Amino acid sequence: MQRRSELTVPRGFSFSAVEANIRKTGRKDLALVVSETEAVMSGVFTTNKVKAAPVKVDMMRIRSGNGRAIVVNSGNANACTGERGTRDALDICGMIASPLGANAKQVYICSTGVIGTPLPMERITQKIPELVGGIGKSSLHDVAEAIMTTDTFPKIAGRILDIDKRKISIAGVCKGAGMIAPHMATMLCFLMTDALIERKALDSALRHAVDDSFNKITVDGDRSTNDTVLVMANGMAGNRIICEGSRTFRTFTLRLSEVTEELSRLIVKDGEGATKLIEIVVKNAKSRGDAEKAAFTIADSLLVKTALYGSDANWGRIMAAIGYSGIVFQEERCDISICNVKVCRKGITTGREIEAAGMLKAREVGIVVDLHIGNASAKVLSCDLTEEYVRINAEYRT
Amino acid sequence: MQRRSELTVPRGFSFSAVEANIRKTGRKDLALVVSETEAVMSGVFTTNKVKAAPVKVDMMRIRSGNGRAIVVNSGNANACTGERGTRDALDICGMIASPLGANAKQVYICSTGVIGTPLPMERITQKIPELVGGIGKSSLHDVAEAIMTTDTFPKIAGRILDIDKRKISIAGVCKGAGMIAPHMATMLCFLMTDALIERKALDSALRHAVDDSFNKITVDGDRSTNDTVLVMANGMAGNRIICEGSRTFRTFTLRLSEVTEELSRLIVKDGEGATKLIEIVVKNAKSRGDAEKAAFTIADSLLVKTALYGSDANWGRIMAAIGYSGIVFQEERCDISICNVKVCRKGITTGREIEAAGMLKAREVGIVVDLHIGNASAKVLSCDLTEEYVRINAEYRT
Repeated sequence: MQRRSELTVPRGFSFSAVEANIRKTGRKDLALVVSETEAVMSGVFTTNKVKAAPVKVDMMRIRSGNGRAIVVNSGNANACTGERGTRDALDICGMIASPLGANAKQVYICSTGVIGTPLPMERITQKIPELVGGIGKSSLHDVAEAIMTTDTFPKIAGRILDIDKRKISIAGVCKGAGMIAPHMATMLCFLMTDALIERKALDSALRHAVDDSFNKITVDGDRSTNDTVLVMANGMAGNRIICEGSRTFRTFTLRLSEVTEELSRLIVKDGEGATKLIEIVVKNAKSRGDAEKAAFTIADSLLVKTALYGSDANWGRIMAAIGYSGIVFQEERCDISICNVKVCRKGITTGREIEAAGMLKAREVGIVVDLHIGNASAKVLSCDLTEEYVRINAEYRT
Repeated sequence: MQRRSELTVPRGFSFSAVEANIRKTGRKDLALVVSETEAVMSGVFTTNKVKAAPVKVDMMRIRSGNGRAIVVNSGNANACTGERGTRDALDICGMIASPLGANAKQVYICSTGVIGTPLPMERITQKIPELVGGIGKSSLHDVAEAIMTTDTFPKIAGRILDIDKRKISIAGVCKGAGMIAPHMATMLCFLMTDALIERKALDSALRHAVDDSFNKITVDGDRSTNDTVLVMANGMAGNRIICEGSRTFRTFTLRLSEVTEELSRLIVKDGEGATKLIEIVVKNAKSRGDAEKAAFTIADSLLVKTALYGSDANWGRIMAAIGYSGIVFQEERCDISICNVKVCRKGITTGREIEAAGMLKAREVGIVVDLHIGNASAKVLSCDLTEEYVRINAEYRT
C-alpha cells in the first residue's frame, strides 16, 4: 500500500540552519526555509485555545495567502509569554525580511520547546546575519534536524508527480515525538512544492491531507500550543495552474496526502519511549464521528497502551474503552481482532488470546474493532506507553 | 478540615470471607455482607456502556429498594462474559439466598478482576456453604481485604452521628487502585448504616455523597465496567425515620459524604504506582461544568502527571491542558499556583518555578487554577504517573 518516499527538493527553495544556543549548545536550533519567488501559502494551526505567539502571528499572516520564508527555532516554544512573546516573534520576522528584500508579513515564524519562558532574543538576533547569509548552504535534512526536540531522528518525506509533462515535487519535514512533547511543545510540519496552484485549491488539498494524517495520530492525547502545518507552493514547475475539482487537483491532493501520512507515521514511530506503532481501525460504526471517537478512545487509553507494551492481548480493556467512548454500540455485536487474530466474537472471548499475544511482539501491530452497527469506519495511529515515556517526561527539565 | 474516621460496625450487620482460589491461592477472595433484617438500599453504577454481568443484575435488583445481602468476589470481573455471565451471577445469588431464608432478589452481587473470562463456578459454588456457614466469624476488615486486587492496603472508613439521642453509625469499605485497575476491573464500595431512613432520602444522600467523592477522583481516566457503590440501611438504630429535606437528613448526608470522601482519598492514595496525591482546584470558572472539565483535563494529562512525578513545577503543561479542555477561558487572565506558590500570573511566569519545585517533593500536593472569568469552582483528586504504573499494567497478566 505505501509508496516509497521520492525526495527531490522542489525548484526555488533553499535552506539555512545555524547554532543559536537557544537551549542547548552544539546543535543547530535556528533554521530558515526560503522560496526564490513569492509562494502561495496555506496553513493549519493548533485548536488549543492557548496559542503560542508564533502561531498567533502566522494565523494573521496566512490571511494574505502568500509568503517568502519560514523561520523556525527549537528549544523554546515562545508560548505563554504574553505580549512580549508576540513582539519578539514580529521582531525576528522583520530582521529576516529586510535582507531578503521581502515584506515582514511574508515571513512566517514557528517555535518549539519549553513553554512559559521568553525567547533568548540576544542569542537569536546575533545569529540572524549568519542565518540569512547561509541561505543555500544547508540542506532540507539540516532543517529537519534543527527542529528536533525529543525526536530521535529527523523526519522527511517527498513525492514526485507529473502534471502537463512537468515533474512537480512535493517535499516535507516535520517534528514531534509526543502530540505535545513535554513542554517541549509540539508538532511542526513544513511542506514545499514547485507546483503552480490556486490558493483555494492549496487550502483544500492541505486540509484534506492533514485530516487524514496529522489529525489521525495520537501519542498521549495532549494537544499542543504550537502545532503548525505550513505549505508553500511557488509555481516554479511551470505547470498549468491547478484548480479545485480538476483531475490534476485530485492527483496533487493524493500525493500531498501521501507525504503528510508518511510524516505522521514517522511521528508516531518516534513517539516518546514507544516500542510499538499501533494502527487502530474501527469498522461498521453508526457514523464516521463515532468510528473516530472509539478509535481515539482506544488509542488514548492508558490501560490499552500499557497492555500492548506488555504484549498482552487484553481485549477486555479495548471493550471497556469503547464502552466509555460515548458512541452508539452494542457489546454483544462487537468483534475484536488483534494482529489479525480474532480474540472476541459477539462480545465474548474466542479463547485465542495467547495466539494474539505471540503476534503482539512485533514492532507494528494492528487492532480491528468491528461494531456491526453501521457502515462508517476510521483509522488512527498510536503507540504504546512505556516506562521510558514517563522517564522522558518526568525528567525533561531536570 | 478532615475528621478522623470513627469506625463502629452498624447494628445487625455481619460478615464472612473465604478463600475460593478464584485467581490466586492463599488469599480471601469471596466475601459476604449480611443484614439481620431487610435493609433499605440504594446504588450507583458505572456509566460505561459495557456493564459487567453483576452490574446488570444489581441494576435490576435495586429497583425494589431493599435487600438482605451483598456477595462479592475478587479475581474475576465477570465482564464481557455474555449470557453465561448473567446466569452465573444469578446462580450465585440463589445459592446464597436459600440458607439465609431470603429471596434471591434480595441478594446483590459484585465482582472485580480479569475481564472476559467466565467465573470459575465450580470453585465458587463449592465454597458457598463455608461462606454462609461462616457468617459472623469475619470482620469488616476481612471483607475489605477480600475485595482487593492491585490495591496495596484495605480501605475502610466510618462515622458516628447522633439522631434522636441514638448513636447511628455509618461504615464503608471500598477497593480500587486504578479508576479501572487493569482488566482488574474496578472501584467497588459497600456502605452500611443502622439508620432508619426513607428510600428516597437514602437515594438522594448517596447521590450527593458519590458526586462529591468517587465522581471527583481519577487515576488514569479509564472508566470501568464494574464500578458499583451500594448502601444498606437497616433501621436497627431505632431513630425516627429520616426524611428528605429534614435537619437529620442533612446531618446524615454530611456524614455519609465524609465516609465516601475518605474512601475516595484512599483509592487515589493507592493509585497504581502513585507516589503523590494531587488535589486540583479550579476557581472562578464560568460554570461548574467548566470548572470540572478543566480540573479533570489537568488531572488526566499525562504530561502534567509525569511532570508532578518528577517534581517539575511545569505550569506550561497545566496551561496547555486548560487550553484544550474546551472551556471558556482567557490565557491572559489565568493564575496558577503549585503548592501555594504562584508560578503564573495573568498567563505569564512569575519566575518562582524553582521554589514550587522544592514544594513538589511532598507526598500530597495542590494545584490551584484561578480562571478569573466567573465564580464557579471544582475540586478533583488525582495522582502522579510513574514507571511503576506502566509496569503494573503491562505485566499484570504475564
